[in-house]
Amino acid sequence: MMFNKVAIVGVGLIGGSLGLTIRRKKLARRVIGVARHSATLKTAKKIGAIDSGTVSLSNPELLTADLVILAVPPEKVAEVALKLAGRFRHPVIFIDVASTKQAIVSKLDKKLPKHVSFVGAHPMAGSERSGIDAARVDLYEGALCVLTPTRQTSRRALKTVQTLWTRLGSRVVLLSPDQHDARVAQISHLPHLAASALALTPDSAALALAACGFADTTRIAAGDPELWAGICATNRPEIVCALRRYREQLQKIEKAVARNDRAGLLRLLKSARQRCLKLYR
Amino acid sequence: MMFNKVAIVGVGLIGGSLGLTIRRKKLARRVIGVARHSATLKTAKKIGAIDSGTVSLSNPELLTADLVILAVPPEKVAEVALKLAGRFRHPVIFIDVASTKQAIVSKLDKKLPKHVSFVGAHPMAGSERSGIDAARVDLYEGALCVLTPTRQTSRRALKTVQTLWTRLGSRVVLLSPDQHDARVAQISHLPHLAASALALTPDSAALALAACGFADTTRIAAGDPELWAGICATNRPEIVCALRRYREQLQKIEKAVARNDRAGLLRLLKSARQRCLKLYR
Repeated sequence: MMFNKVAIVGVGLIGGSLGLTIRRKKLARRVIGVARHSATLKTAKKIGAIDSGTVSLSNPELLTADLVILAVPPEKVAEVALKLAGRFRHPVIFIDVASTKQAIVSKLDKKLPKHVSFVGAHPMAGSERSGIDAARVDLYEGALCVLTPTRQTSRRALKTVQTLWTRLGSRVVLLSPDQHDARVAQISHLPHLAASALALTPDSAALALAACGFADTTRIAAGDPELWAGICATNRPEIVCALRRYREQLQKIEKAVARNDRAGLLRLLKSARQRCLKLYR
Repeated sequence: MMFNKVAIVGVGLIGGSLGLTIRRKKLARRVIGVARHSATLKTAKKIGAIDSGTVSLSNPELLTADLVILAVPPEKVAEVALKLAGRFRHPVIFIDVASTKQAIVSKLDKKLPKHVSFVGAHPMAGSERSGIDAARVDLYEGALCVLTPTRQTSRRALKTVQTLWTRLGSRVVLLSPDQHDARVAQISHLPHLAASALALTPDSAALALAACGFADTTRIAAGDPELWAGICATNRPEIVCALRRYREQLQKIEKAVARNDRAGLLRLLKSARQRCLKLYR
């Protein structure tokens, strides 16, 4: 047992999967879930993601947790953290699971009481599906989890959170919030928006011919629009920069095709292929 | 039995899979393969994709085929078809399997002897893998196959080829070569180049964080560069047009992100999502 009581605020795909895995691996004596709708809590309890649930952040049961997981949309993390933190009287660790870090960390650093230790976390696992029905006990197995400690982060809390993610089956990487946001803009946020733009491009006659190549390349664009709008809002400069770099690469390819520059096109396709093959190794 | 003897010129992923399926479904008495290397023929025979093989297009055994499948790269199809056609003395059907059609069809229409009937075919199935080792007996099951008849196409040959693809398990769609090229540029060639550009965009620090979303969106960019350079060379104006349309969609998204226009971004993400969800139904 790593924790006495874990509170998971937001019992969707990410929070629900955490509950399932924490309970399955017996990392906490008790897992309590917080959701807006009691139907979500009912499902979460039924599938074994939580021991009990509440629809109220003011529920006193939450205040005895020693780990609070803020699995709410990125724009809500800081707000919920600040609201909850003021009510805790004993040492507690807060973590989030959002895809953007700088906006969140800067709102929380130096703003939390001493006994509330915040560690920014981003498990790089997910699905185009969302909600408690999509929760899976193996979601974090073999995934990467980026932690973004700052000078304000308690070393002890960081160590505990590292151990938690390792025991959840993830490979932990430490980055500064800035580094995290710049890299994730390129490797996660850009692909999502590129897939969305790709899904929007074909006319309906062309769309009728879509085969698995097209479905694979656009699959992630089926993700929750509200969540992704929130991600974009909290990582704007980095995402805009990644989109520009992407358009430059596209223009290189477009030029090579338009000019019938076979050698140039081959160079680009070959180096793209090399990068892909490395990913699958 | 639909055919007495089928000759497959080019025994890679596409040709090899056709051989496997034709033999398994007993659509021909005999399948003969043509490849540049005898090692390919050996593998093709071993896995059951052909009955016998030859490395020479001049092999007289080929001339008794009643169906010739030209499974060679798009730039080679017309050349090989013209070379072979002149030697046939009895009625025979030629089909190709290339991803581009107008460049091929225009080179063959009116150029072939009367007893050689050409039907342009594009089975929309494939993989980022290539070669005989990637051949699969179920590659065409449930896939779409576009046939591109013209005024010169024999109705009888077209009907035979339609039946062939239906019996291979594919859904047959008839389009003009022009229509085919414009639609496939958007739904197949563009996604490939978009995936290549995406694979080239992240810096190496970001690439180290690549998770399954990135791998899925770039998977097809691992395809054979030579093949794709050939596809681009034979469908240039349509591909350039599709790339421009794609860049326009990307710029819309980029603008919405840069301006923090949440409503505008949500509209784009939602309509992209709708299109994706329809694909999976």
